[in-house]
Amino acid sequence: MDRKEFRDLASPEEAREAIHSLSLEGGVDRVSLSEARGRVLVARLDAELDVPGFDRASLDGYALRARDTFGADEADPATLEVTDEVHAGEKPDVNVGEGEAVEISTGAVMPSGADAMVPVERTDTADGDVLVRTSVAPGDNVMFAGADVAAGERALGPGTRITPRDIGLLSALGIDDVPVRANPKVGIVSTGDELVRPGEDVDSERGEIYDVNSYTIAAGVEDAGGEAVLYPHAGDEQAEMERILREAAEECDLVLSSGSTSASAVDVIYRVIEEQGELLLHGVGVKPGKPMLVGRLEDSAYVGLPGYPVSAMMVFRTFVAPAIREAAGLPETETATVGGRMARQERYGEGRMRLMPVGVVTDGDGETLVYPVDKGSGATTSLAEADGVVEVDAETDYLETGESVTVSLFSPDVRPPTLLGVGEDDPTLNRLLDGLENPRYLSVGSRPGLRRLREGVPDVAVVAGPLDRDTDADELGGWEREWGLLTRPGNPDRIEGLADLVDDDLRFVNRTTDSGLRSSLGNAVVDLADDRGVERRDIVDSIEGFDLGLRAHESPARKVIADEADAALGLRETADRLDLAFVSLGSQPVRVFANPDRRKKRGVRELEAALEERPDAS
Amino acid sequence: MDRKEFRDLASPEEAREAIHSLSLEGGVDRVSLSEARGRVLVARLDAELDVPGFDRASLDGYALRARDTFGADEADPATLEVTDEVHAGEKPDVNVGEGEAVEISTGAVMPSGADAMVPVERTDTADGDVLVRTSVAPGDNVMFAGADVAAGERALGPGTRITPRDIGLLSALGIDDVPVRANPKVGIVSTGDELVRPGEDVDSERGEIYDVNSYTIAAGVEDAGGEAVLYPHAGDEQAEMERILREAAEECDLVLSSGSTSASAVDVIYRVIEEQGELLLHGVGVKPGKPMLVGRLEDSAYVGLPGYPVSAMMVFRTFVAPAIREAAGLPETETATVGGRMARQERYGEGRMRLMPVGVVTDGDGETLVYPVDKGSGATTSLAEADGVVEVDAETDYLETGESVTVSLFSPDVRPPTLLGVGEDDPTLNRLLDGLENPRYLSVGSRPGLRRLREGVPDVAVVAGPLDRDTDADELGGWEREWGLLTRPGNPDRIEGLADLVDDDLRFVNRTTDSGLRSSLGNAVVDLADDRGVERRDIVDSIEGFDLGLRAHESPARKVIADEADAALGLRETADRLDLAFVSLGSQPVRVFANPDRRKKRGVRELEAALEERPDAS
Repeated sequence: MDRKEFRDLASPEEAREAIHSLSLEGGVDRVSLSEARGRVLVARLDAELDVPGFDRASLDGYALRARDTFGADEADPATLEVTDEVHAGEKPDVNVGEGEAVEISTGAVMPSGADAMVPVERTDTADGDVLVRTSVAPGDNVMFAGADVAAGERALGPGTRITPRDIGLLSALGIDDVPVRANPKVGIVSTGDELVRPGEDVDSERGEIYDVNSYTIAAGVEDAGGEAVLYPHAGDEQAEMERILREAAEECDLVLSSGSTSASAVDVIYRVIEEQGELLLHGVGVKPGKPMLVGRLEDSAYVGLPGYPVSAMMVFRTFVAPAIREAAGLPETETATVGGRMARQERYGEGRMRLMPVGVVTDGDGETLVYPVDKGSGATTSLAEADGVVEVDAETDYLETGESVTVSLFSPDVRPPTLLGVGEDDPTLNRLLDGLENPRYLSVGSRPGLRRLREGVPDVAVVAGPLDRDTDADELGGWEREWGLLTRPGNPDRIEGLADLVDDDLRFVNRTTDSGLRSSLGNAVVDLADDRGVERRDIVDSIEGFDLGLRAHESPARKVIADEADAALGLRETADRLDLAFVSLGSQPVRVFANPDRRKKRGVRELEAALEERPDAS
Repeated sequence: MDRKEFRDLASPEEAREAIHSLSLEGGVDRVSLSEARGRVLVARLDAELDVPGFDRASLDGYALRARDTFGADEADPATLEVTDEVHAGEKPDVNVGEGEAVEISTGAVMPSGADAMVPVERTDTADGDVLVRTSVAPGDNVMFAGADVAAGERALGPGTRITPRDIGLLSALGIDDVPVRANPKVGIVSTGDELVRPGEDVDSERGEIYDVNSYTIAAGVEDAGGEAVLYPHAGDEQAEMERILREAAEECDLVLSSGSTSASAVDVIYRVIEEQGELLLHGVGVKPGKPMLVGRLEDSAYVGLPGYPVSAMMVFRTFVAPAIREAAGLPETETATVGGRMARQERYGEGRMRLMPVGVVTDGDGETLVYPVDKGSGATTSLAEADGVVEVDAETDYLETGESVTVSLFSPDVRPPTLLGVGEDDPTLNRLLDGLENPRYLSVGSRPGLRRLREGVPDVAVVAGPLDRDTDADELGGWEREWGLLTRPGNPDRIEGLADLVDDDLRFVNRTTDSGLRSSLGNAVVDLADDRGVERRDIVDSIEGFDLGLRAHESPARKVIADEADAALGLRETADRLDLAFVSLGSQPVRVFANPDRRKKRGVRELEAALEERPDAS
């Protein structure tokens, strides 16, 4: 197979142009008024009738000849004979003659002969007559046919994105069926033998993982005004993958693939493109996103996204979403942007434009600090913890602390968190956070949490167990938690304490050294070593699994449940919740420290208030 | 019936509180991931598993023991025996021993024994061995189980409005089913015998009109995050109305009625509320919106909206939509606001807070001018021609020209028009406007258009026929249009000119005196009077219907089609389009004048360019 060669990476601008050159537009849909909200009109709609369709009484009162009221006032009313009444929805079958009046309801058709009306409040009745205590001019209190909209008038222009107010206008014109731009149909094909759809069971031993890109990209497509179509997973089997790609290309305006990192997947895509299509571009000078493909598959546009979820979303957002929006007829997003200063130095310098996901936090003076969010290219959660993106030029080697940057928020309705916390993972804390307005918490562990607090980015740090060193931070409050060993229900190994892990042949699971639990366990190990007159290392080496540390407070317990371990470091609360036996080794404080400059921040004050009302209540 | 008495109007604040005191909240829905976008989580979701679920290779390359690479570099590679390969989605069945390496794909499970990996780019192969040209540390290029998300970690908090990024996180956790707040169900009951649903036929002679409120309020409900349920029209028949109201109250969290202006409708609502419910408020000190009702109907919240569409929407937007948003768990709209100056004085002073719909236009200096949009309380189109609302205090008697006001836009994505035009209604103009980006055109007629241009609000005025007076405005361009009499196909009355209307017994339909067509017709009348040596008035009085003027260019022609007239004033283009016979009376210029200060505005320049390319092409 001859592959078209792309020796150099395309520039981001070239990538945008390549996608722009493909036609993503769907056709025209006709939708009913109840489905028209937010859709984009493809043609001008003119009024086909007058609104109102008749001369209409604007108020409850009397229809009459204006001339008959001339000179009337409170003291000297005009007396007219009431000959009939007309209600809304009725055809009047009366003519109003000189000296006559007809009782009329709001919205009713003006009877012939009448040229004005008087509101009921300016009249009295007496023996079948009406006393009119004001004079009116012809046309007063009457809305003439076509006064609101006249037949033939331009009502809505092409390109109008239909609002509830436009629906009001269309309703008034009796239009129940409007021609709108079809939402571009976007097929999503995730490839990879290891992918499993959420909701099904995943076999980690086989290296299976949940498919993140399908639903995420689909949601992004819908945010951009497209209609997403999920195709079944294409495994790495070439014939199947080719069949799915061709099916998607036939049915959709745009096909997006992701996860096609294996050589065989790329081969299939190349083949289908070469046979019926055109490859416009392979490789773009951005990070993430270098392996992007742009071309045509049969009559459909095609973009190949990177497989890693963060990369796929960043490339989608930067290059693909704007093209879908345009095809859907939506206005270019006036991307909400926020200016801020870098909270810390960020080195880079790979000679490609960088799309850097960032979080933002407000400092004590109300200024916006910006910090990069990057858990590595394989991470899926980075974006959920970010607020937007800073585009860094290919020429920029590093951003200085304090340097001004512009963050383009992920969407205009992104609300930066009211509180940024870091530190220990703890169930009581999780409940506290549930009661706050829009907090963000990064469970990086106690020690890294305190370090980050010192560096000035987060508002608060949550620290469990003994402190290594003093801190200048303000203590907002805290609680105690009981910790120890979690083991199978009924404690079949009869574990009574740490010594059993040392002396018996038991598999143990620890927490990472960053966690407060691990610090307290470390102290217990030292105590045991002192009791036995041995080195700390001797104790540690005798516990199978001591060096294997897991990041979250429940993870070790789950290893016990999965029968991968006999005992796990954890909390009494976790044991209770997961129905495990618990061997207490002590209790430790969990303390919440605040950056002294941020004490006045609303989120910090909310957390402080929540801490004052019994944080340890479950 | 005892009615609870509400002697004084409630304040807007009291109305907000009354609605706030009602519970509009729906329950909990469980939705799949593909439907979760934009929904609001009701409970915290914790990770139930580690992500990744295994120690994962981050790149294509070789899994090995880091210790075996210590000291290796380009010049002096470490040579390891390749014993096996592991692909993504496979369970490795190999142990990596000392001096060994296993070929591994991105995303594959790290085999036991290996503690790091080397990317393929830093290696060469030779005879089944791999030459590793770099040293790596334990953990390098491996993403450990739980490094992304660890089991037990707090993933998303309650109240989270789910973004595509959150869907990524949920996908990674295998969660396909999320508990979200049910959208509040809002029943809409429009009352009135005269209402007809759009799409059906309307009988204007009976005073029927299209129901504007149902679809418009429904769209507003959906904009605010609610689920709208349209109920069949309740006529003014009491038993039917009561049945529909009770049905809606049983099925919905909130019932909105509108159009219940007739006394009998109010009676029914009062009765249902008195029997099972509570009336909290009747009458609010706002304009429009005074007749609002707030209460409970059985277990549902109830708000009675005014019947006039503009009033109903303004009250809905101001009082009801925020409560629906809150019940839906959406953030309070950070209503987009625009500051501007009043383009002209606006008197008021009725002692109620006024919700004044306004349009905005940018002047030549880029400043925002604000003008009230008010076609009277019965008009339905005012809001489609407005951009937002200025709230005017009850204490404010008038707003001065130039006074600063704050406009709260109807929604954050409202884009004020790029061009504001006023003047004659013309089909060529309509086509020109179709080619522009987001124009607004108010067909007020030629003379009023020119007057408004002089007053400084619009950018351009379109004037047809002879000018009454000189203008300082800049002429951008124009075209000619042929005008005359439109009559039935084949011209059965053998009309040859104006004289036939005077001499024969023919019913004529005219345009309003504001229109350029009427001015040209007026000149023709004067010419005919001169020819005959009579007064102008004699001619006019002999033409039946001469004084009846319709507002839009096609309206008179439609009277001929409806057989309500024998001849109509109009354009050749209209005759051709509607298949009517045409008797030419001449041609007249249509000229586009611009405010000299606005020549540089983008919309004005676009219009000027469009005028230069043959505006009379159809």
